[in-house]
Amino acid sequence: MNRVLYDLAGRDEAVRFSPYCWRIRMALAHKGLDVQAVPWRFTEKDRIAFAGSERVPVLVDGEVVVTDSMAIADYLEQRYPQQPLFDSPQARAHALFIRHWTETVLFPQITRQIIADLVLQLHPMDVPYFRSTREARLGMTLEAFSADREVHLPALRASLQPLRATLAGQAWLGGDGPSFADYIVFAAFQWARCGVGRSLLASDDPVAEWFERLLNRFDGLGAAAPCATPGPARA
Amino acid sequence: MNRVLYDLAGRDEAVRFSPYCWRIRMALAHKGLDVQAVPWRFTEKDRIAFAGSERVPVLVDGEVVVTDSMAIADYLEQRYPQQPLFDSPQARAHALFIRHWTETVLFPQITRQIIADLVLQLHPMDVPYFRSTREARLGMTLEAFSADREVHLPALRASLQPLRATLAGQAWLGGDGPSFADYIVFAAFQWARCGVGRSLLASDDPVAEWFERLLNRFDGLGAAAPCATPGPARA
Repeated sequence: MNRVLYDLAGRDEAVRFSPYCWRIRMALAHKGLDVQAVPWRFTEKDRIAFAGSERVPVLVDGEVVVTDSMAIADYLEQRYPQQPLFDSPQARAHALFIRHWTETVLFPQITRQIIADLVLQLHPMDVPYFRSTREARLGMTLEAFSADREVHLPALRASLQPLRATLAGQAWLGGDGPSFADYIVFAAFQWARCGVGRSLLASDDPVAEWFERLLNRFDGLGAAAPCATPGPARA
Repeated sequence: MNRVLYDLAGRDEAVRFSPYCWRIRMALAHKGLDVQAVPWRFTEKDRIAFAGSERVPVLVDGEVVVTDSMAIADYLEQRYPQQPLFDSPQARAHALFIRHWTETVLFPQITRQIIADLVLQLHPMDVPYFRSTREARLGMTLEAFSADREVHLPALRASLQPLRATLAGQAWLGGDGPSFADYIVFAAFQWARCGVGRSLLASDDPVAEWFERLLNRFDGLGAAAPCATPGPARA
C-alpha cells in the first residue's frame, strides 16, 4: 500500500479527531481504498512542508500529493471514479452549501462545546500553539469561551433542524446512499466524539440514529476509532 | 395554453408573494413552459377543493392536477425532462437540505420581518383568517411578533452565511447554472420583496447580487412582478 494520509492526532496518537481528516477517512473507505493514516500534530509543520501546506489532511497517493479536504475529494473522484462521492456536478455544487452550513453554523457551536476539553487531549508540544492561536481568534481564553457551554447546547441542537427535517424524508443526505455531504456533517460530530469523548446529540434525536449508522459503515470504521475519555488525557 | 397555476395574491391581484408559488413560477420558466398564474386568496378553499388541497401552489396541466411545490417540481421533471431542475437523484437529495434550511431557518426570520406589513396587503376577506391562524401559531399578535424586527435583522443577515460562502465559490447554488435549489431560496426573498416591497438583504451583500441575477432571469420574470408598496395596500 502506497497511500498515506497525514491525520491529526492527540497526545494519544490513536485518537484522531480532525473534522477535515474524518471526511477523507470516510471518503477513502467509501471508495474501498486502503490508507495508512499516520499521526500528525499541529506543530509538526515541517513534516508536511513537502506538500506546501501547514494543515492536514494531506494525502500522498503514490507520486501525487493533495491538500485540502475538498481538493482531496475531487482528486479521489477523478482518480478513482468507482463508487462516486457525488453522482453529478450539481450534486457536488449543492453539497458545498451543506459544507458551508457545517463550517459556519456547526463548527463554531461545536468549538464552544469542546475546545476547553480538547486542549487537555493534545500532545503537550501542541498546547501552547493551539491555545495561543485559538485564543487570539476567539478573543478570550478557551475556558472562558466554553464556560457556559451547557446554556448553548440547546441552540446547537435546535440548529440541526435542517438536517433533522431532511433525514425525516430520506435515509442519507445523499438520498438512498451516503454522499460526501453525509461525511462532511458526520465528521463534525466525530470531532466531538473522538476528540473529547462526548456526543452532542440527544439520544432520541433522529440525527443520532443517522450518525450511528455512519459510525457503523465500513465495518465500523468510525465506531472503532479510539476516543478520548473526558478529563485528563490518557497515555 | 392549457396550464394553470393557482397563485397566492394580495388585495391587488397583481401582487403575488407566496414563497412556494414563486418556486414553481421559476421552475416553469426554467423549462420554458408557459403558465397562466391565476390569482387565488387564502380563503378561497372552495376554488381548489377539486385538487384535494387547501393551499397553493396547485398546478393544473391539461388533465393533470398536482399540489405541493416539491411534488410539482418532481412532476415537471418527469413530464418535461428538458432543462432539468436537478441533474441527478443526489442533486435533488442535497437540494432538500437547502429546502429545509430555507423553511426552518429563513422562513421564521422573514416572517418576523414582514408579517405585520403583509397583513396590510391582503384582500380584506383574507385578513381575519390570516390573522387568527398566524396569531394562534405565533402565540401573539402579528404586531407583537414583528415589533422588534429591526433588532433581529442583523441575525437574519448573519444566518445567510452558508449561502454567502457557497456563492463566493460558484455563481449559483446549482453550480454553473441555477437549479431548483436556487429558486427555493430566491422565492423566500421574493416573498418579502413582492409581499411588502422590501429587500431584506444589505445592498453590498453578495447574496443581493445573486438575487438580482435571479430577478433578471427569464426576461425579468421576477423583476417585473408587481410588488406591494410599503404601507396601506394599493388598489
